[in-house]
Amino acid sequence: MPDQVLVHSRLSKKLLARIRERFTLLDTYGAPPLEAFSAAELSTVRALITAGGQPLGADVMDTMPALGAIVCYGTGYDGVDLAAARARNIKVGNSPAANAAAVADLAIALLLAVERRLLAADRYVRSGGWASSAPSPAMSAPRGLTGAKVGVFGMGEIGRKIAARAAALEMQVCYHSRSRHDVPFDYFAELADLAAWCDILIVAVRAGPDTHHVIDAAMLQRLGSGGTLINIARGSVVDQAALLAALSERTIAAAGLDVFEIEPHKPDALSALPNVVLTPHIGGHTASAHQRMQDCVIANLTAFFAGEPLVYPVV
Amino acid sequence: MPDQVLVHSRLSKKLLARIRERFTLLDTYGAPPLEAFSAAELSTVRALITAGGQPLGADVMDTMPALGAIVCYGTGYDGVDLAAARARNIKVGNSPAANAAAVADLAIALLLAVERRLLAADRYVRSGGWASSAPSPAMSAPRGLTGAKVGVFGMGEIGRKIAARAAALEMQVCYHSRSRHDVPFDYFAELADLAAWCDILIVAVRAGPDTHHVIDAAMLQRLGSGGTLINIARGSVVDQAALLAALSERTIAAAGLDVFEIEPHKPDALSALPNVVLTPHIGGHTASAHQRMQDCVIANLTAFFAGEPLVYPVV
Repeated sequence: MPDQVLVHSRLSKKLLARIRERFTLLDTYGAPPLEAFSAAELSTVRALITAGGQPLGADVMDTMPALGAIVCYGTGYDGVDLAAARARNIKVGNSPAANAAAVADLAIALLLAVERRLLAADRYVRSGGWASSAPSPAMSAPRGLTGAKVGVFGMGEIGRKIAARAAALEMQVCYHSRSRHDVPFDYFAELADLAAWCDILIVAVRAGPDTHHVIDAAMLQRLGSGGTLINIARGSVVDQAALLAALSERTIAAAGLDVFEIEPHKPDALSALPNVVLTPHIGGHTASAHQRMQDCVIANLTAFFAGEPLVYPVV
Repeated sequence: MPDQVLVHSRLSKKLLARIRERFTLLDTYGAPPLEAFSAAELSTVRALITAGGQPLGADVMDTMPALGAIVCYGTGYDGVDLAAARARNIKVGNSPAANAAAVADLAIALLLAVERRLLAADRYVRSGGWASSAPSPAMSAPRGLTGAKVGVFGMGEIGRKIAARAAALEMQVCYHSRSRHDVPFDYFAELADLAAWCDILIVAVRAGPDTHHVIDAAMLQRLGSGGTLINIARGSVVDQAALLAALSERTIAAAGLDVFEIEPHKPDALSALPNVVLTPHIGGHTASAHQRMQDCVIANLTAFFAGEPLVYPVV
């Protein structure tokens, strides 16, 4: 009998097909494990797959007494209580860098869409506004990317790829992260100074207690009235209420957001704004990125069931 | 009295403000000169500003017997009858490369928007589709850019910048142009072979009789059912009826278009399609590109009125 693996998050069947060829999947479809399966069924589960952003605490771990491995589908593991896992001798693995290029591409897609006002432009053509020379404030000349200042917050694999892409777009690129990296971009020791310097601030930092709401009202004030915020990391890094206020009052100019404080994001005041581009957490959602993430998940699970260390451990 | 310059195309007052500081502008607001001004007024006009794509033939030239210079606002000059100008000893100038980065940026913006389905994604979030887990074919995983094949048609300043940006996005880049260039990308001697090879074909070629409708039904067939067409050059390069058929019948997958056979483009079957992103010829429309294009226009006019050769002649 193939090894049993619980699916703790809502992940599509199509995405799990390759993994299902190798393991027996107990799919909760995103429900708490004890609602989807009996205590007896859960008692033999030794490994699970989860989306790293979804909360996974001691309470859930304790419903699976045999649990030995938590394997995150994707780069993030901020939802996993690492201390609780360690205390129970549960290994935690992820899919490092497997989706970095796809996420960096989406950051640049959002940047370009916001800066060149792509949504308004497409509407202007389709509605006949262009044909009738209808005046449109959204169609006044935007600043353009050439020479504009991009601040990248976070210099992991994704941040590096964003910085390289922005540089290829002939933009000025600087960054902030906990420590200086060996990259050809100027370092700001303080995020506040980076926000004040840049026109476009891109959040590419790992989520965690130390980055929770670091983009707050004061930081947005520093970014300023010409500023654009792009977030492809995690919603928790940005104080979303402060962002909504800043966008409504034009404290900043615009935003491109792939992630939200609560996901899936419901239509609200934020999604009614004209100066935002919103995507449903699709940064890593490409066929090639999924292929590589699945490779990592399969490698981690195979190693675990063979009694070996995880191939891609998070700690 | 400052030198008189006729404005032959519909160009915004804001764009002309810097030029108006130096020259007296006779603005036709896009009307034929003889409708906007008397023959007597036109008889003293020695220079005009035009948008390069707008038709400007012998008939118009002959309404201004003193005309000595046609200065194109932008890179293109395909609307100007160069032979007629030469026969009348009228110099023709343009703004070479002034907007190349802005146009290349828009090509990449369209590529990313089409490939990552940005418009559908934004609608999915705003409409509440994401929050209610509504099934959406547009939200299935797209191929992703990494390793995808980009064919660049045309290797002028804009083509080069597009190729460099696509390479920074970790895509495979090849190109076709009349001759091989000293660039780090593989050359296809035949456009048809490039179209068959690539996933995404980007039109960045100069418009003219030799490129009229070279992207026709047969070429789109070669691009194929997974193919995407991006056009930021001129509408005349693409057989738009054939493109509409190819998109409707899924002979190709999608398109991103900044230019059209007739501009401004009116809402029609093309603009009703879901698998296209349309922008109103805004490739070079950024504040920084306009600044540089105006610099070129002013330099050309200043030289002309000083009796010197144009600084940026097209021939």
